[in-house]
Amino acid sequence: MATRYYVGIDLGGTNLKAGLLDESAKVVCKFSMPTGVEKGRDHVVGQIAAAAERAVRDGGVSKGQVVGVGIGSPGPMSHKKGLVINPGNLPCMRNTPLRDLIASKTGLRATLENDANAAAWGEFWAGAGKDIRDMVMFTLGTGVGGGVIVDGVLLRGCFEGGAELGHIIVQPGGRRCSCGQRGCLEAYSSASNVAARVTEEIRLGAASSLESMLHRGEPIRTEHVVAAARAGDALASDVWDDACRYLAQAIVVMQHTSNPQRVVLAGGMINAGESLLTAIRAHFRRLTWKLVDDGPEIMFATLGDDAGFIGAAGCARYADETGDW
Amino acid sequence: MATRYYVGIDLGGTNLKAGLLDESAKVVCKFSMPTGVEKGRDHVVGQIAAAAERAVRDGGVSKGQVVGVGIGSPGPMSHKKGLVINPGNLPCMRNTPLRDLIASKTGLRATLENDANAAAWGEFWAGAGKDIRDMVMFTLGTGVGGGVIVDGVLLRGCFEGGAELGHIIVQPGGRRCSCGQRGCLEAYSSASNVAARVTEEIRLGAASSLESMLHRGEPIRTEHVVAAARAGDALASDVWDDACRYLAQAIVVMQHTSNPQRVVLAGGMINAGESLLTAIRAHFRRLTWKLVDDGPEIMFATLGDDAGFIGAAGCARYADETGDW
Repeated sequence: MATRYYVGIDLGGTNLKAGLLDESAKVVCKFSMPTGVEKGRDHVVGQIAAAAERAVRDGGVSKGQVVGVGIGSPGPMSHKKGLVINPGNLPCMRNTPLRDLIASKTGLRATLENDANAAAWGEFWAGAGKDIRDMVMFTLGTGVGGGVIVDGVLLRGCFEGGAELGHIIVQPGGRRCSCGQRGCLEAYSSASNVAARVTEEIRLGAASSLESMLHRGEPIRTEHVVAAARAGDALASDVWDDACRYLAQAIVVMQHTSNPQRVVLAGGMINAGESLLTAIRAHFRRLTWKLVDDGPEIMFATLGDDAGFIGAAGCARYADETGDW
Repeated sequence: MATRYYVGIDLGGTNLKAGLLDESAKVVCKFSMPTGVEKGRDHVVGQIAAAAERAVRDGGVSKGQVVGVGIGSPGPMSHKKGLVINPGNLPCMRNTPLRDLIASKTGLRATLENDANAAAWGEFWAGAGKDIRDMVMFTLGTGVGGGVIVDGVLLRGCFEGGAELGHIIVQPGGRRCSCGQRGCLEAYSSASNVAARVTEEIRLGAASSLESMLHRGEPIRTEHVVAAARAGDALASDVWDDACRYLAQAIVVMQHTSNPQRVVLAGGMINAGESLLTAIRAHFRRLTWKLVDDGPEIMFATLGDDAGFIGAAGCARYADETGDW
């Protein structure tokens, strides 16, 4: 049988990443292009269709060998309806039936998945989870995204609101989250909230080596907090340790819910390196139960920024296998 | 095609409950008998086999019409291995390959499931979840048990440790749980811990209308706490409200992980009645996010103590469908 190919597209607010993969998850070609959100919905839809056509062309295969196009989109969205609902960073795409538009423009089958699920599926298919069946992924970026795979199946949930792991409540009555809850994981363990907590504390009078940055009008970012914590700054150490501890607590929660073999950490915060893994693993061991030893391995993602389009291509492959486009 | 039947057995420390069901989940017969744990393992295994034979006989069907036997066992146990590992209330059953012993004694196919999962599967098949595909169950008894069904599939987890929902951490650094963790849901929302918390607080000097019970040497139970809370006792109200609030918080956690259509509450604590549901729903609405409306319905189980053996029979039916005995 001839090799089968899948187009994957990761739709972002500024750029989209796209590529062509074969059924063994080998990336045949990949590229990035501007989403062009400022030019409106028709333009964005056109860019996505153009990216799909280009992936086929750059990959040097015939359209007949391409099974379909997978698109990872920011949420809220609906896989079932193939609908982009109301993504904050792509306002022009509100209520766009993107799956069917791309299918009709390209003549290829198309499937739509939320971007966090697609990235988790990418790591599961081709990255840190490729040898296992049960995986949980936390993406630690501006927010905290999640993805859960149970026995080889992507968990979407009844209302397609599953695996929103950034909104696990880790501290009752805790920090207000942009979602309206209090004490969400995201309010402590996302890059933006690590930086925001240090900034707030300094403004409230806490002593820190990072004070001078604020006085110079420079925004404090997570990498500054990590560096200051390493240099012994007490405030930075406390905030950074909270981020690691609450994440470990959320991993305990996932241990007792989906019970994965492996927890994969992705997103900008993993640039903090091995010390982040060491801290999270130590907190996990301290926090988890002692009845049986069913804790997951905790490790970093391996695909970096490519997880999104690779996973989107993997979603097309999965849709083909299950008949659920 | 002739009607197909399933034997279900719910193995408890004191009694076992058993019955025969048809494929529409109709209970053809049911009964209970002593487990006889004090007489040792061979006796207990014999009782289970005898119960299976009796269910067939009482049901008035021929063995050829019976597809198999499902057994719900206290954990830790392994469905995959058909093995009872080390149940606290059945010490003689340690490391017993119960599935294969019952199959060989009865000549029927057998499958083993943990009792919390079996009860959840019972409600899903024949009770409060019979019209849906995505359900979470919390069983509020001496401990807090859990069961999770995702798109019609029972979630077991990679290490068969999934859906241990009593050990979701709801209060970091909180009450010590018997599992070794701190701040588990079970430490606040189980019947035994509701009573224990009130008792501890009174011993530490808190004022309560329940003091006199302790002075008379009578143990405080959950129903006393519920009655005192209704009568306006401040300590009882606080502890009971904590139990409801932490459960609502765990429901928010499940909303953002498996995203069920319905959350079903079971176990002795639901005898507290409609006021329990009202309190949990109110806390849930206050605690959950405001981004999208994907919260589950919250309702009581409908099968009572029969959920275990009904679900065990349902597990036999499910094993037959999936080929996974």
